[in-house]
Amino acid sequence: MKKIRVSITSPKGFTAAGLACGLKKSGKLDLALIYSEVPCAAAGVFTSNQVKGNPVIVSKANLKNGQAQAIISNSGNANTWTGEKGLGDALEMTKLTADALGITQNNVLVTSTGVIAKPMPMPKIRQGIKAVVKALSKQGGENAAKAILTTDTRKKEIVVKVGKVTVAGIAKGSGMIEPNMCTMHAFITTDAEIAPRLLQKILNKAVQKSFNLVSVDNCMSTSDCVFVLANGLSKLRVTSCESRVAQAIEYVCEYLAKEIARDGEGATKLITVKVSGARNNKEAAQVAKTITNSPLLKAASYGLDKNVGRILQAVGTTKAKVNWQKFKFNWQMGKKEDVITVNLGAGRGTAMAWGCDLTYDYVKINAAYRT
Amino acid sequence: MKKIRVSITSPKGFTAAGLACGLKKSGKLDLALIYSEVPCAAAGVFTSNQVKGNPVIVSKANLKNGQAQAIISNSGNANTWTGEKGLGDALEMTKLTADALGITQNNVLVTSTGVIAKPMPMPKIRQGIKAVVKALSKQGGENAAKAILTTDTRKKEIVVKVGKVTVAGIAKGSGMIEPNMCTMHAFITTDAEIAPRLLQKILNKAVQKSFNLVSVDNCMSTSDCVFVLANGLSKLRVTSCESRVAQAIEYVCEYLAKEIARDGEGATKLITVKVSGARNNKEAAQVAKTITNSPLLKAASYGLDKNVGRILQAVGTTKAKVNWQKFKFNWQMGKKEDVITVNLGAGRGTAMAWGCDLTYDYVKINAAYRT
Repeated sequence: MKKIRVSITSPKGFTAAGLACGLKKSGKLDLALIYSEVPCAAAGVFTSNQVKGNPVIVSKANLKNGQAQAIISNSGNANTWTGEKGLGDALEMTKLTADALGITQNNVLVTSTGVIAKPMPMPKIRQGIKAVVKALSKQGGENAAKAILTTDTRKKEIVVKVGKVTVAGIAKGSGMIEPNMCTMHAFITTDAEIAPRLLQKILNKAVQKSFNLVSVDNCMSTSDCVFVLANGLSKLRVTSCESRVAQAIEYVCEYLAKEIARDGEGATKLITVKVSGARNNKEAAQVAKTITNSPLLKAASYGLDKNVGRILQAVGTTKAKVNWQKFKFNWQMGKKEDVITVNLGAGRGTAMAWGCDLTYDYVKINAAYRT
Repeated sequence: MKKIRVSITSPKGFTAAGLACGLKKSGKLDLALIYSEVPCAAAGVFTSNQVKGNPVIVSKANLKNGQAQAIISNSGNANTWTGEKGLGDALEMTKLTADALGITQNNVLVTSTGVIAKPMPMPKIRQGIKAVVKALSKQGGENAAKAILTTDTRKKEIVVKVGKVTVAGIAKGSGMIEPNMCTMHAFITTDAEIAPRLLQKILNKAVQKSFNLVSVDNCMSTSDCVFVLANGLSKLRVTSCESRVAQAIEYVCEYLAKEIARDGEGATKLITVKVSGARNNKEAAQVAKTITNSPLLKAASYGLDKNVGRILQAVGTTKAKVNWQKFKFNWQMGKKEDVITVNLGAGRGTAMAWGCDLTYDYVKINAAYRT
């Protein structure tokens, strides 16, 4: 496995594009399209929020057959809490994209992120979809990576090669504070050949070890989703969750998850928490997440104040079994990254979690998100 | 029931004092004593954090017989994660207080709040306890109310009268962000006569409807505690949880809980959340707390940005049953207070919760708490 440059279009047969269709007042890119020249095996993981964006409902339905060929994704409007009209709009987005591409409507996945409870400005979307289909190219990956962003300060891309297979990913997401309400999107492409059910299994496992560790389950946004498209054009067939390609997908997810944490709203640094010595992995993850979610610890991290009471308090609030006699911890504090290691002394369970510091800018960004 | 001025010493037979014994660098008051001239029925509620301050361990043991006569409380040092030495220090504080007052050692409750994992400067404490016992007076309530504060911006006091009975309370607490790691202390005195078991029952019920709604259970600090002392000197005997005196204790708890929320670290306003239409009261409380704990909603409240998406997302992240067809909500936003009402349309359960906005000052306070 080696890490290479380029973009979401690196795997064989994929093209992409991103442009500004006017959803963002700033004039920044806000509409992205990722396309495979042949239908792909596809898998997805969605928000567990009771309130689901209309695009989530549509994409979930379209993924039922384990197939997809394109992802149309806009930022600037979440198309959530927009009623039946909004559901119709999400469906129309898949239809417009399918028609323009000459593919089947239910092979188009759609995602939206941005403000909630505002109608989608469909005239802009209609123009935008026509234009973005025309703009598809091998060089369009960077614009696609930019067009899915909201409060992110930078694009998040990665490409890895495993033999003749390429796996690429882009993501957006910039709110890691619990409860994490800021939408997280990640799109992964590969030219490996993977059966849909195996692909879903690989994705579930990868998400569990990556995106789910930067955000606790019950705090997902209304629009979170992770998609992986595998078009098989490398002719390499993947047959197990332990394969090197599966590991590459895990690596891509972990990389993007950390990038999301590092680019948390207002964040100046990444906080990595490693827990060992737990009764089991579940309790280890619970402790790791509780530490990354503590606003007091996050603020102390920002202020370079190594106040170890923050770790003790966070661990103590969990129900995880701790052998306080053997309990050990360490907090390496830096300007760009903190690494906190905790050993609960109670077993062999381990977990990692990623978060970011809490800063003035987080408050600033969220005090006037819509303005 | 009427609300009157004065202090924790208003009920018959209570005196108090507060002074600076040098625990706080600022020179502010940091040692408080509350004393009843006769032994009291006493009840307490303590933190559920796995890590418990040494004073919590000692006070819990001393409350087992349902009796107490004095509370010695310091700010500036939490005496937590200080090992056996710290446990000895907490015990010594009760002994010094008991000896100076000429009362039984296990009738003294002790609480400490402040920095964690630093040894108690016992020479200062020893001098301080001698002085604070000498300073006891009917007028000392205000100083006691000040001496228990840490990052609070103002003291929190209340006195209510029910017939010939007086109920008074003071509290400290200034961190309402989840996970709530900032210590909350509340001390309530009354001259009503109440059997210890009934008093504990009344207190549990009152805490459930007040302090527990400004902070979720598993997020309590290592040192949280609420005490009530009833010395019986009014000669009025309370025999039920539904009595007017029990209601007065509830009222005092609710008042102090709201004061704590309103004075949340860096807060500019109180956020009151009223949930109705839940399947049961428990689910209603879960939704109310989730809303008050959302940093995105809290930041929006600070920015006077009525972003209703924040309410939808918070409700959606809970597991509470919601009838989305009947779901209704309203957000009254003001400069001093927000009131959010939510009807889940799924039943008759109701709950309230209190929180505060998230501001630059919260980050500032916690980025350099110890400096």
